[in-house]
Amino acid sequence: MQRQIPEVVVSRLPMYVRGLAELHQDDIDFINSKDLGHRFGMSPDQIRKDLSYFGKFGRQGRGYNVALLLSELRQILGLDRQWCMAIVGVGRLGRAIMDYKGFVPRGFKIVAAFDKERNVIGKRVSGVVIQDMAELETAVRDKKVDIAVVAVPSTEAQEVIDKLVRSGIKSILNYAPVYAYVPKDVRLEAIDPVLALQGMTYYLARSQDYR
Amino acid sequence: MQRQIPEVVVSRLPMYVRGLAELHQDDIDFINSKDLGHRFGMSPDQIRKDLSYFGKFGRQGRGYNVALLLSELRQILGLDRQWCMAIVGVGRLGRAIMDYKGFVPRGFKIVAAFDKERNVIGKRVSGVVIQDMAELETAVRDKKVDIAVVAVPSTEAQEVIDKLVRSGIKSILNYAPVYAYVPKDVRLEAIDPVLALQGMTYYLARSQDYR
Repeated sequence: MQRQIPEVVVSRLPMYVRGLAELHQDDIDFINSKDLGHRFGMSPDQIRKDLSYFGKFGRQGRGYNVALLLSELRQILGLDRQWCMAIVGVGRLGRAIMDYKGFVPRGFKIVAAFDKERNVIGKRVSGVVIQDMAELETAVRDKKVDIAVVAVPSTEAQEVIDKLVRSGIKSILNYAPVYAYVPKDVRLEAIDPVLALQGMTYYLARSQDYR
Repeated sequence: MQRQIPEVVVSRLPMYVRGLAELHQDDIDFINSKDLGHRFGMSPDQIRKDLSYFGKFGRQGRGYNVALLLSELRQILGLDRQWCMAIVGVGRLGRAIMDYKGFVPRGFKIVAAFDKERNVIGKRVSGVVIQDMAELETAVRDKKVDIAVVAVPSTEAQEVIDKLVRSGIKSILNYAPVYAYVPKDVRLEAIDPVLALQGMTYYLARSQDYR
């Protein structure tokens, strides 16, 4: 069994996978930690340290075997199988998420959706019939849901997340703009568009200063 | 004038700001690069290197002054003012973005919205009147839009982004799940929920292996 991988290293692996997939598509077979570091804006040391958790991929002088490292990281991240998702909250945001075309090609399938509104329950959205929130716990088990996506208003987010935790869900993606609490054995990731915006204002502020 | 800051360093600043704001709220006045590194999962070296671009915040033995560093980074990122955003595409996703309560408290205000559908144009959503896509270029200038948020279907994203670039927009946040191309002087950030999901499947894959 592998040794414990720090969370922050795990959190960087999807970025490595995306970058390596691009290299692979460009027919680049080997890359050294210096060039990888340049690509990801990290020191070669940090890259070597990150990847050392997963075995010996590098070869002195030649660098990392792109295809091998990519396939290994995909396997480590569990991207070699399909994951089942449930959407909780089928308002505007929930529907937009169910419309999103980027999930299935990368191994994420929406198998269930829940709402508490009478006028929504029973309707079919993107091929999935919306169920009553009251059915959440049994449906999550029956449909073998791996990941829940929370798209309810902020005021309801914590309550919904607590319900998901009770139903046994261990991975939650939260779109509501609130901090939410989960037990230690549950993973909670948040979609925060403001972080992406804040990375751009740096350049705007600069260009306006010298306008 | 400051020296050129590498893009990847800039991209990490919002994370530093968020972390420092939490420390500040917890009444922590000083923190050293080792503890910061632990918090962000980076080597103390990398932290010191990142922050060294912005002047001398650290003091030997005492660490960084949290309030000072936070205020300085906020200023560097341009977070000490309000930014004006336009939403392009007012379908489900666009409306969900306009409903989002997390923008205004962190300095981002939606001042314009555009769509090409006759039955949407002229309607008011979250206090903003939807305008015809044909008015985009003049409205962007009149309303001094700093940042555009693209929420159109994938097939239309590149066309809309080209139009935004022609109108003089320098910062674009793209929600469409496609790679898009922009000139070198335009910043394009993408919201990719799959990257967040991929960071969680690692733990799911592990727990299922040993179930």
